Amino acid sequence: MQIASLARLVEQLERLPGIGHKSAQRLAFHLLNLSEKEAESFLDAVREAREKIHECAVCCNLADQELCPVCRAGNRDAGLICVVEDPRDVMALERTREYMGSYHVLHGTISPMDGVGPEQLRIKQLLTRVAEHDIREIIMATNPTVEGEATAMYLSKLLKPFDVPVTRLAYGIPVGGDLEYADEITLRRSLEGRSRIE
Amino acid sequence: MQIASLARLVEQLERLPGIGHKSAQRLAFHLLNLSEKEAESFLDAVREAREKIHECAVCCNLADQELCPVCRAGNRDAGLICVVEDPRDVMALERTREYMGSYHVLHGTISPMDGVGPEQLRIKQLLTRVAEHDIREIIMATNPTVEGEATAMYLSKLLKPFDVPVTRLAYGIPVGGDLEYADEITLRRSLEGRSRIE
Repeated sequence: MQIASLARLVEQLERLPGIGHKSAQRLAFHLLNLSEKEAESFLDAVREAREKIHECAVCCNLADQELCPVCRAGNRDAGLICVVEDPRDVMALERTREYMGSYHVLHGTISPMDGVGPEQLRIKQLLTRVAEHDIREIIMATNPTVEGEATAMYLSKLLKPFDVPVTRLAYGIPVGGDLEYADEITLRRSLEGRSRIE
Repeated sequence: MQIASLARLVEQLERLPGIGHKSAQRLAFHLLNLSEKEAESFLDAVREAREKIHECAVCCNLADQELCPVCRAGNRDAGLICVVEDPRDVMALERTREYMGSYHVLHGTISPMDGVGPEQLRIKQLLTRVAEHDIREIIMATNPTVEGEATAMYLSKLLKPFDVPVTRLAYGIPVGGDLEYADEITLRRSLEGRSRIE
């Protein structure tokens, strides 16, 4: 009992991240049951996003104009750069409504296991930016994983000649977390980074 | 920090069943990062499946020809009809490799809460089929939910005048399940349906 075009659709949906065979089937049936209008909206959204979205000329974040919304905003401190792996990290940091500097999106981490070297990341763009502009501080906000750490270390070495302070996001126990379930490395880092209660 | 076409894509993806906001973002970034060729394969698969797939002229299962693969196969017993809610239920039953009869797909259950009445289901087609062909047995294989049960009851009443035996899939404890965790209704049904060990 095989219907070729259905099998092909399920196979395509299975390639999406986090979608297994059962979910792919469910999505396929959903897409088949959409009205003509709904299906067009769906396909248009994919097409349009792919056509319009590219990387910001300054920070390599996603953008539908020359600059991304952060670089376009008038109220951001361009002297402060927060280096992140992924555009989603920009969104996460923006949600804090705390950070008013700019970003630099690497689009990945150095990961020899996955065949990703420094040349695949937006490192050249970062160095050019630091060389050409007056940067006061660079905050490394790569993920606290082996690859994220290694990338942050690698970048901080590359940035040394520019004599710009390079900092790292604090490690520690997550707010609302449970000490009992924190791993020992996190706890150790959280001890090292302890601060005085004022 | 809003990029209109990205927000639109995420919004479209969030409408898919089982996809929340975070997953929709993840899928959106995946779709943006596809190569031109991969993206075309994806969009084509959706378009093609929607164009080619319709309902089987006999059993209302999904089909890319006039008849679905089951109705087309030469080795199936057309005198036996298994009534299911959904094309996925056909796939599940086919995986057993046990059932060699035919199907009838209702495309839903009677559910007044969701505004689904008998006229939205493929009931007329089932009655026509039973009236015009020599059917020996109709197996109700709707889901063991309130709506599935009610639909099976409703259908068996409608089918009464045709004088065809209507049966129901057995209820009981699932194989590999645990008595301790079985609900009392399942256990009661499983007691009622007990069979002699030969």
